[in-house]
Amino acid sequence: MLGAGASLARLLRRAPPLCLQRRSRGGRLRVREALAAQAPGGDVRVQGWVRSVRSQKEVLFLDINDGTSLQNLQVVADPKLESRDLGFGSSVEVQGKLVKSHNRKQNVELQAEDINIVGPCDPMAFPFKLKARHAMDYTRQFPHLRCRTNTFSSLLRIRSKATAAIHSYFQDNGYVHIHTPVITSNDCEGAGELFQVETASKTSEPGKNPHFFNVPAFLTVSGQLHLEVVTGGFVRAFTFGPTFRAENSQSRRHLSEFYMVEAEISFTESLQDIMQEMENLFKASAAAILSRCQEDVELFHKYVAPGHKDKLDHMLKNKFVIMSYSEAIEVLKKAPEAFSFKPEWGCDLKKEHEKYLVKHCADIPVFIINYPYDLKPFYARENEDGPQRTVEAVDLLVPGVGELYGGSLREERLHVLQSRLDRLGLLDTYQWYLDLRQFGTVPHGGFGMGFERYLQCILGVDNIKDVIPFPRFTHCCLL
Amino acid sequence: MLGAGASLARLLRRAPPLCLQRRSRGGRLRVREALAAQAPGGDVRVQGWVRSVRSQKEVLFLDINDGTSLQNLQVVADPKLESRDLGFGSSVEVQGKLVKSHNRKQNVELQAEDINIVGPCDPMAFPFKLKARHAMDYTRQFPHLRCRTNTFSSLLRIRSKATAAIHSYFQDNGYVHIHTPVITSNDCEGAGELFQVETASKTSEPGKNPHFFNVPAFLTVSGQLHLEVVTGGFVRAFTFGPTFRAENSQSRRHLSEFYMVEAEISFTESLQDIMQEMENLFKASAAAILSRCQEDVELFHKYVAPGHKDKLDHMLKNKFVIMSYSEAIEVLKKAPEAFSFKPEWGCDLKKEHEKYLVKHCADIPVFIINYPYDLKPFYARENEDGPQRTVEAVDLLVPGVGELYGGSLREERLHVLQSRLDRLGLLDTYQWYLDLRQFGTVPHGGFGMGFERYLQCILGVDNIKDVIPFPRFTHCCLL
Repeated sequence: MLGAGASLARLLRRAPPLCLQRRSRGGRLRVREALAAQAPGGDVRVQGWVRSVRSQKEVLFLDINDGTSLQNLQVVADPKLESRDLGFGSSVEVQGKLVKSHNRKQNVELQAEDINIVGPCDPMAFPFKLKARHAMDYTRQFPHLRCRTNTFSSLLRIRSKATAAIHSYFQDNGYVHIHTPVITSNDCEGAGELFQVETASKTSEPGKNPHFFNVPAFLTVSGQLHLEVVTGGFVRAFTFGPTFRAENSQSRRHLSEFYMVEAEISFTESLQDIMQEMENLFKASAAAILSRCQEDVELFHKYVAPGHKDKLDHMLKNKFVIMSYSEAIEVLKKAPEAFSFKPEWGCDLKKEHEKYLVKHCADIPVFIINYPYDLKPFYARENEDGPQRTVEAVDLLVPGVGELYGGSLREERLHVLQSRLDRLGLLDTYQWYLDLRQFGTVPHGGFGMGFERYLQCILGVDNIKDVIPFPRFTHCCLL
Repeated sequence: MLGAGASLARLLRRAPPLCLQRRSRGGRLRVREALAAQAPGGDVRVQGWVRSVRSQKEVLFLDINDGTSLQNLQVVADPKLESRDLGFGSSVEVQGKLVKSHNRKQNVELQAEDINIVGPCDPMAFPFKLKARHAMDYTRQFPHLRCRTNTFSSLLRIRSKATAAIHSYFQDNGYVHIHTPVITSNDCEGAGELFQVETASKTSEPGKNPHFFNVPAFLTVSGQLHLEVVTGGFVRAFTFGPTFRAENSQSRRHLSEFYMVEAEISFTESLQDIMQEMENLFKASAAAILSRCQEDVELFHKYVAPGHKDKLDHMLKNKFVIMSYSEAIEVLKKAPEAFSFKPEWGCDLKKEHEKYLVKHCADIPVFIINYPYDLKPFYARENEDGPQRTVEAVDLLVPGVGELYGGSLREERLHVLQSRLDRLGLLDTYQWYLDLRQFGTVPHGGFGMGFERYLQCILGVDNIKDVIPFPRFTHCCLL
C-alpha cells in the first residue's frame, strides 16, 4: 500500500494553497481531485453542496458537488450523522477517509467521520427539487441559482474552457490580444440599434457640453475598426469581448449583450486567407472543448440535444463549403420550397434562406462570399466585377444557428475608400480611419464570430439565453 | 550545411497557414521567426513596416518591423532597389535570402532580391519622425497610430501576454472563468459615478415603459456580486473584463473604462486566504510577464522608468506587509509629515496617506485590513470587535500606484446581511442576493485588481492612459 499512500500524498500536496489547517484536520480535497484519486487512504476534508441524500437503515448516502466536475463525490456515513438541515442544496464540510467504492460508477467514495452543515437550504423555498430534471426555461427564471443545477454548471465549465481554448488558439498562432473599447464615439454602423451612454447623474448646465465625453458615446457593436488600427503595426490581432445591440428582439438567437471573437490579419492575399482562419478557429476550438470537457459535453449531447453529436462530428470532419452569393440566389430560386421572402439578387438572405442553403450543402457549414456592394458596410473591399457590384465579404452559415461568422477583406485602397466615405457623407467622421490607409496601408481582412452562437452550435442548445451566465435582452436585465 | 537547411525548412513549415504561395516565391516568415533562425539559407519573404532607411553608396539598409518583436529585421539591398516611396512608415514586402549578419546585434539579416512597396507613407504628414523619441503625451494624441511606435507596440505585446498569464494563473488554480455582465440593473454602489444605458433611438411612447430593459440600466462597476452567484455552486470563479466609472477625473490614475481582474473563493477560513491569493496572483503573473516579454519590459525599465527594475524586484522578493487600518492611522498620526488631510480613525485614506504608508513599509506592498464598518460597502463581513466597528476588508497599496487591489470576506450570515440591508432600505433590491445566503450559504470572499494599475506597477508607467490601447476619460472618447 505504499504506492497508494504516496499517490494520495501527492494529491494533497497539489491541494490549493488556501487550505489553512488551523485545526488539526485532514487536507482539503476538491471533488474532482478526490474522484481522480486512484489509490485511496488518508484523512481528507471535502466541501461542497449536497446534490442528493439517501437515508437507509444502516447507512446514509450523500452526493457532494463543488463545481469542479459534473460527477459528484459519494459520501457514505453512519445514519446517526444525519440531521434535519442535511438536505438537497445545503452546503457541507465532510471529514473522513477516501476508500475504494463498491459502486461501479466511481472509483472511490468518502467514508464520513464528521459532517458539518455550513449552510442549510429550505427545500420548500428552494426552486430546484431533488431528482427533478428542470426544463431550461424554468431554470432560466433563476439566474442567481441556476449554476447549482447539473446542466448549467456543465455549461459554465464548458464556457470557461472554450474561452481558454480560443485565447490559446490565437496566442499560439501569433496574434496579439487587444482590449478594444466598449464605449465608442463611432455610431455609423446600424445606427438605430445602438445603446447610448451618459452619466447617471446628468446635470447639464446651460452653455456646457451636455455629454460626459463631449460627444455622444455608444456601446460598441464590434471591435473591428479598433483592431484595424492595431493591424497597422502588427500582422495579427484579436479581441474577445462584449458587444451590444439594442434590437427589440426576444428571439432564441439574439441578446442585447453578447460576446464576439474578432480577428484581423494584415498582408492577406485573398478572402481565402480569412476563410481558412475561420475554419481553423472553429475546428481547433471544438477539438479542444471536446477533449477537455468530455463529460460536460456528453450531458448536452445525451439529454439536452440528443443526436447533436453526429451533426457536430459531420461538421468537424468535412471541409466547409464555399458558395458565392450569386450561386446561393440561384440555388434558392430553383428550390422547390415556397419561401415567405422571394429570393432576389441584391436582397439580404433571410433565416429561411440560410436554413435551406445549409440543408442544400448537406448540413456542412457553408461560406457565402462576394455579397452585393450595397448589402455590406463601407469598409468591405470592392471586387473588380463591375463598379459597385460586389464586395469581398463572407458569412459562415451553420446548421441550427444560421449566421455564425461575418468577415471581409477591408478596403485598403485610399482613393476607393475615400470616394465611398465621401458619397456617404462620412469623410470627416472617419478621417482617422483614412489615415490608416494614408500611412503604410496593407491589404488586410478579418472576421467576427458570435461566441454564444458558437456554443449553441457545439452543444445543440436551442436558446441563446441558456449559454450565457446573465442574459440581457429587451425588457430583461435581471441582477 | 544540411543541418542549416533543415533548420530553416522547419521554420518555414511553422509559418502560418495563411501563407498562400500562389506565385512562385519564398516562404513567408515573420520578423520574429526570421530573427530566431539559427541557420540561414533559403528564399524567404518578409512583410512589415519600415522603421529606418539608411542609404549608403554601395548598400541600402532597411529595418523592418511587423509587430511580432521589438527587434527589427535588418534588410541589406542594392541601392538600385531604393525608391522615393521607400520611407519611414511605409509597408513593404521583401524577398531574398536570410544570411549571417556582420552586425553583432543580430544573428541574421535579409539579403534583398526584391522590395515591393505595398503602401507608401508621406513623411511630412506622418506624425512620427524617423529616429525621434516621441514623448508619451505626444504619441497619446494619435491613438490610431501609436501602435507603430516602439514603446506602444511593446506595451501591447506585454498587455497581451499579461492577459494570457492572468487567465492561465486562474485556469491552473481551479477557477471557472465567468463573463459577468457589462449592463446591470444594480445601481447601489457609488450611485453618482455610474454610466446609464438607453437605446440611442429612444422613442418613449406615452404610457409605455421608457426603459429598454424596463428598469434603469447601468454599466457595471464590478463583477463581484455576479461572481458571488457563481461561487454558490463553484469553489472558485474569476472574471476579467471592462468596468466603468463616470468620475469627473483626468488624473493619471483614473479612466472611465478600465479592466478589472476579479476572483471569488468559497469556503474561505479567514481574510488571510484572500490575501495569500492576491499576493500569489501578483507575483506569479509578474514572473510570467518578466520571462515572456523580457525585451519589451527592458525597454520600459531602461527608457521609460529608469530604476524601476530594482523597485519591482524589491516588491517581488519580499513578503507583502500586513497592517490593520487602526495601526495605519497610528503610524500616520505619528508621522513627521504635514498632511493636507489630518489622519483620523474612520476617515478614508487619502493618496498622501497611502504614499506615506508604503514608504513606511520600505516600499514593499502593504495590505491594510479591518477597515471601519462605515467605509466599506454593505457586503463586507462584520468583525466581532464591537457592533458595527470594523469589517474584514482589505486594500493592497503598492509603491507609485497606491491602491491596486480591494477585497473582503463577504457577509455570509443571512440575518446579519438582512439587518444591514434593511437599515439601508435595500431589502427588496437585493432579495436575490439574500437568496444566496438563504440556500446553502458558505463563508466566502474575493478581490478585484485594476489591470491597468497592475501594468503601471510592473512597468513603471506614470500615466494610466499609456497602458491601455484606447483610453476613455472625461471629455475624451477618441475613435
